[in-house]
Amino acid sequence: MYHFQAEDLEKMSKIYRLNLINSVTGYKSAHLVGTTSSKGIDNLAVFSSVIHLGSNPALIGFILRPTTVPRHTYSNIKTTGVFTLNAIAQHQIEDAHHTSAKYPETVSEFDFTLLEKEYKPFFKAPFVKEAPIQMGCKYVNEYLIKENDTLLIVGEILHLCIADNLLLKDGWVQLEKGKIVTINGLDGYALPHLLERFPYARPKS
Amino acid sequence: MYHFQAEDLEKMSKIYRLNLINSVTGYKSAHLVGTTSSKGIDNLAVFSSVIHLGSNPALIGFILRPTTVPRHTYSNIKTTGVFTLNAIAQHQIEDAHHTSAKYPETVSEFDFTLLEKEYKPFFKAPFVKEAPIQMGCKYVNEYLIKENDTLLIVGEILHLCIADNLLLKDGWVQLEKGKIVTINGLDGYALPHLLERFPYARPKS
Repeated sequence: MYHFQAEDLEKMSKIYRLNLINSVTGYKSAHLVGTTSSKGIDNLAVFSSVIHLGSNPALIGFILRPTTVPRHTYSNIKTTGVFTLNAIAQHQIEDAHHTSAKYPETVSEFDFTLLEKEYKPFFKAPFVKEAPIQMGCKYVNEYLIKENDTLLIVGEILHLCIADNLLLKDGWVQLEKGKIVTINGLDGYALPHLLERFPYARPKS
Repeated sequence: MYHFQAEDLEKMSKIYRLNLINSVTGYKSAHLVGTTSSKGIDNLAVFSSVIHLGSNPALIGFILRPTTVPRHTYSNIKTTGVFTLNAIAQHQIEDAHHTSAKYPETVSEFDFTLLEKEYKPFFKAPFVKEAPIQMGCKYVNEYLIKENDTLLIVGEILHLCIADNLLLKDGWVQLEKGKIVTINGLDGYALPHLLERFPYARPKS
């Protein structure tokens, strides 16, 4: 086994460390975050940091890097108060990853990928058509993680759209049936298949 | 497509909503968190909320449910200041899930599963032997998410051990090579295989 200590991590080249530390915390969720600017330009950005925060109310969180460089997603969310989360399916990974390219604010990532946008009458931010799970969320709060100046954005799910074949009788959503992917590190996309669902665990006597 | 609105989510049965909302945010990381109590009893608990917060310093986070019921992991971390994160491999999923059973504080989950503990001379909390990635972390801070009284625990990776075959030349860790799993909802364990790694994305002209 390799063994790195904090001092070793500090001495590494930046790229090596980014690859390493972004990978070792395990598989991450894969989403396209859709927003609209005050000028009506739709923005789409890949995120691997969306997490479940609570079910009642339905709260999600995601992490934003330091705001020292322009962050269109963040400024759009602050302006409009809403955003969409769109699960990424296998056939969308190349275009999804491409949304991480640094386009100017006047450009919509929808115009530079084959990802199609979908407006829904009940929501002010754009969804990704063909995303097997689409969520319309409102901005709720943000927390500054002062240790590295990142932001935890907290949102509430107001609208939840799920492709029919994914939703099981007990409310569990089988992500595999939508070929939903997961992210390994900064740039690896992987497709899971279900091994097993376990019943509620009770102590052995 | 199914379409649920916030009011629909509110009206659902608790179990249905837990299954649903825990699934829709996508795949989650799968870890066993190892801690030791002030009385020297080792605790092991499965977590699906460990996230990457930053690479320099190497910071991770995870979410703890409201502290109204005993949380051995939390009290151990607060007492000793350290914990381990152990990636869950395919052959460990049944035992990993079993650590979610509510054992009293006087019992070590290691004694009720086939998961073997491993003490390392340089660290005060127990690791899981055979975990393809093991991290020794120190407690750094916590943030109360006041919207639902959850806690975001922030930790720093002090020691990082990785099975030899997982680490690639550029620092990227191929989780698939350790048969590391991911979690779907509360109780589903899935095994990903890599589809593709993409180069750094640049704007199309």
